[in-house]
Amino acid sequence: MFSIKMLAEEIARRSSGRLTSLMLGGAEALSVTRFAPIESASAEHVAFVAQPKLRGALKASGAGVIVMRESDRESVWGAAEPDRPLVITRDPYAWFAWALQVMTDRPVKPGFIHPRAVVDESAQVDPSARIEANAVISAGARIGARTRIDAGVNVGEGVLIAEDCHLYPNVVVYAGCKIGARAIIHSGAVIGADGFGFAPFAGEWVKIPQVGAVTIGEDVEIGANTTIDRGALEDTVVGKGSKLDNLIQLGHNVRIGEHTAMAACTGVAGSTRIGSHCVIAGAANISGHLVIPDMSIVGPATTITSWTQGAKVMMGYWPAQERSQFERTAVTVRRIGELRRKVRELEDRLEELAKN
Amino acid sequence: MFSIKMLAEEIARRSSGRLTSLMLGGAEALSVTRFAPIESASAEHVAFVAQPKLRGALKASGAGVIVMRESDRESVWGAAEPDRPLVITRDPYAWFAWALQVMTDRPVKPGFIHPRAVVDESAQVDPSARIEANAVISAGARIGARTRIDAGVNVGEGVLIAEDCHLYPNVVVYAGCKIGARAIIHSGAVIGADGFGFAPFAGEWVKIPQVGAVTIGEDVEIGANTTIDRGALEDTVVGKGSKLDNLIQLGHNVRIGEHTAMAACTGVAGSTRIGSHCVIAGAANISGHLVIPDMSIVGPATTITSWTQGAKVMMGYWPAQERSQFERTAVTVRRIGELRRKVRELEDRLEELAKN
Amino acid sequence: MFSIKMLAEEIARRSSGRLTSLMLGGAEALSVTRFAPIESASAEHVAFVAQPKLRGALKASGAGVIVMRESDRESVWGAAEPDRPLVITRDPYAWFAWALQVMTDRPVKPGFIHPRAVVDESAQVDPSARIEANAVISAGARIGARTRIDAGVNVGEGVLIAEDCHLYPNVVVYAGCKIGARAIIHSGAVIGADGFGFAPFAGEWVKIPQVGAVTIGEDVEIGANTTIDRGALEDTVVGKGSKLDNLIQLGHNVRIGEHTAMAACTGVAGSTRIGSHCVIAGAANISGHLVIPDMSIVGPATTITSWTQGAKVMMGYWPAQERSQFERTAVTVRRIGELRRKVRELEDRLEELAKN
Repeated sequence: MFSIKMLAEEIARRSSGRLTSLMLGGAEALSVTRFAPIESASAEHVAFVAQPKLRGALKASGAGVIVMRESDRESVWGAAEPDRPLVITRDPYAWFAWALQVMTDRPVKPGFIHPRAVVDESAQVDPSARIEANAVISAGARIGARTRIDAGVNVGEGVLIAEDCHLYPNVVVYAGCKIGARAIIHSGAVIGADGFGFAPFAGEWVKIPQVGAVTIGEDVEIGANTTIDRGALEDTVVGKGSKLDNLIQLGHNVRIGEHTAMAACTGVAGSTRIGSHCVIAGAANISGHLVIPDMSIVGPATTITSWTQGAKVMMGYWPAQERSQFERTAVTVRRIGELRRKVRELEDRLEELAKN
Repeated sequence: MFSIKMLAEEIARRSSGRLTSLMLGGAEALSVTRFAPIESASAEHVAFVAQPKLRGALKASGAGVIVMRESDRESVWGAAEPDRPLVITRDPYAWFAWALQVMTDRPVKPGFIHPRAVVDESAQVDPSARIEANAVISAGARIGARTRIDAGVNVGEGVLIAEDCHLYPNVVVYAGCKIGARAIIHSGAVIGADGFGFAPFAGEWVKIPQVGAVTIGEDVEIGANTTIDRGALEDTVVGKGSKLDNLIQLGHNVRIGEHTAMAACTGVAGSTRIGSHCVIAGAANISGHLVIPDMSIVGPATTITSWTQGAKVMMGYWPAQERSQFERTAVTVRRIGELRRKVRELEDRLEELAKN
Repeated sequence: MFSIKMLAEEIARRSSGRLTSLMLGGAEALSVTRFAPIESASAEHVAFVAQPKLRGALKASGAGVIVMRESDRESVWGAAEPDRPLVITRDPYAWFAWALQVMTDRPVKPGFIHPRAVVDESAQVDPSARIEANAVISAGARIGARTRIDAGVNVGEGVLIAEDCHLYPNVVVYAGCKIGARAIIHSGAVIGADGFGFAPFAGEWVKIPQVGAVTIGEDVEIGANTTIDRGALEDTVVGKGSKLDNLIQLGHNVRIGEHTAMAACTGVAGSTRIGSHCVIAGAANISGHLVIPDMSIVGPATTITSWTQGAKVMMGYWPAQERSQFERTAVTVRRIGELRRKVRELEDRLEELAKN
């Protein structure tokens, strides 16, 4: 059971006082077991309403406590006293997120190095960190307080991993990379493999050693099997608070700003800079050496080869059709030059006709 | 050497009696070493003909035994007795698949836990299961009969893996996921990493714990480095008999029906439901919260943001052209609005001309 | 400190005498610490000029030594004696690549099998090879001289890995695959997982065992989390000197020629043959059973379903636009058939008008 009062206090703390809760109708004294959808919740549940379309369910809901905005409360109860326990907050969805964090937190286990872990004697592991079986901590690496290194993780030479991080099983961090505090890196992610750099010579490719590394900021999350290449000379950088989904590729010397979110299967080619507070949808493909401004949005499956000055949202993918329609459309698009020529001819002929 | 009679019996058994074999010309008494292409097969080989275009090779083939449809037999030998050993079956390709399974089956080795495996004392491992070196079986996990857990595999807390599964090296299954019988999961696949769920708050992203898991049905195959995220509240589900290729991403709460095949590099965003018996080609990108009906087909590199009512096959990708043509085409497509406007103007002007 | 003379000699050696250096202005006697950009280099640095636009920086640069083409030297100093140490070479970029290789080379460590490695007694490991912790070398595998097998790598049964290879942590090579000399394989790559082969039967998928393997040529580099499937009957092949970036998928029986470069996130479906000296940009999607000639180029995010006879560069992706423009463009493209019809009608009506 989780007390609503405790949740409200903890949310205030985690949000650095930015998200407060007004408890009405006795909510302060109640406890709940978990969140449930507003339509199916019962007395031991807490529910939240973040979308206006759910307002209709407010009166009939069996939820023990409902979290909502003041405007939603007003629209249902007006000036009247609500006849049930409520929490009023300016962002019910963020309230839900933090409350669920509190509800699912597990106690921090004591520091631990599994006897099957392989820790180089020159590595520095904080006594409160946990290093699981078959993890490898190489020479000169440093592991911060309370950081969890799961089984099969490989931490390369000289890698710095700050405090309160969690590297899930089988993550690989190549030599020299730096991971900021509270980073979460999911299984199979590879941080710091060589960038794709070769000099063409006489029909062959001469490898250019990649002597930069990767710097991951604080509070970054990196999805499963995502790959972030080390820089050629300087570091590849992911700014603090940015969130990367699964199967993403960042090429060498890419720089991602702060609090940018990037959905799965997206690729960013070398040296491109993506600003802060951007949202990149899934399966986007972003060319190298571009600059994408802060607050930009890229649509799904969109190929960006340049950024239109002043654009906020860039998109572009072939709109799928039923197959036979697609095939006809594709043929016509391939010949769109002909179509344009015909229109020009028509214009000319009409011009001439009009003269006569 | 494999006896044709034994293969026929074993195919009947594996197909639950649905695929039978009529052995002609003494095929019943023959044995073969392996399959070979009809054109290059010799006496110790078995060959099969599934495509009409190969009929021409039937007479001349040196194969010891040929597997084919009755209609193909008729088209070559008509009413005459074939002058060579044949197997007549209604599906030579499936016959080939099952026969090859029999031919490549290895004897099941006895149960085994490698001394370098790390098995929690609260895990339940069937005595006939094989757990290889450096595999980690966490607390409360259960491993079914004859299941093979290869080296470096990480099985999280409370994971259930049914009988006759094969997890190839370095697979990761996060806590609480369930894997059905006879599942095959290839190396590097990550089952149950956190879904990509964050609440935006004051320009930052607040993590929403992902408390669902992943449920994989029976007879599912999952390709190398594929990632299937755990659900936010409910489970992400892959239905029985479905086959996923490599480097696929399934977002949280995706539900894939039964016997659906999905080719490599495809991404499916959160909460989308794909029906049973669907075929999704490679590099498709399917948006979230969609419903794709049973028996649907998605073309290669196709972005699906909605499903056209009644459509069976949806497709859409830019048809590649020689570069200079592409560049011209792309410019014209970007300005297709102008072209449409010009056509409207032409129509208007022609209308007016016609009036005079 | 690296002596310029030593670098020149080593480059000549590594290029088999194909890249020579003419040292002017006393360069032969100098030593440098590292490369630096021409604009910011100082006396202890070497800089290079490969692009004409950097010529302007030549005179003002503080670099101790500058590497450049004869034509660039002439354009700045003409017939005059250069007033600073220079290296003249026909390919400064390749010179840089090889010099950086020399500068970053680490001494080969002696042969070593980590006590936590798991090496089957029937495996043959060259005494000069290094096998790190938790690596698994299966029965019958062979590891060549000076090859480095990093921690957590899984080498399957009967795998052959030639000399001077480097397999980074957690690479998996399935049974029977062959890796040529000097190959570099980055973390998480999976070589030889089953190809995606199933026979449809009565609404289900019958697995076709994949009995081929993978053959990787000499001097190949394979990026992180790339997957190369084993062949169905014959091997999947990557020719010598080819370079594959991260998160690439090669289907069964794909054949890549020699010295072909393929950027990240590209997928190649089964049985396609890509020639030698090709360049495939990122996020391309290439259908199965195609033949792409030597020296071909595929643009980014391009879907290739057939290769235009005689084409050298094929491209095709939707050109991204600002969202509202994209939406209008997409609607019009979907209806381009209508537009074409209207143009035909206009042509007919104009024809008729002209007659009158």
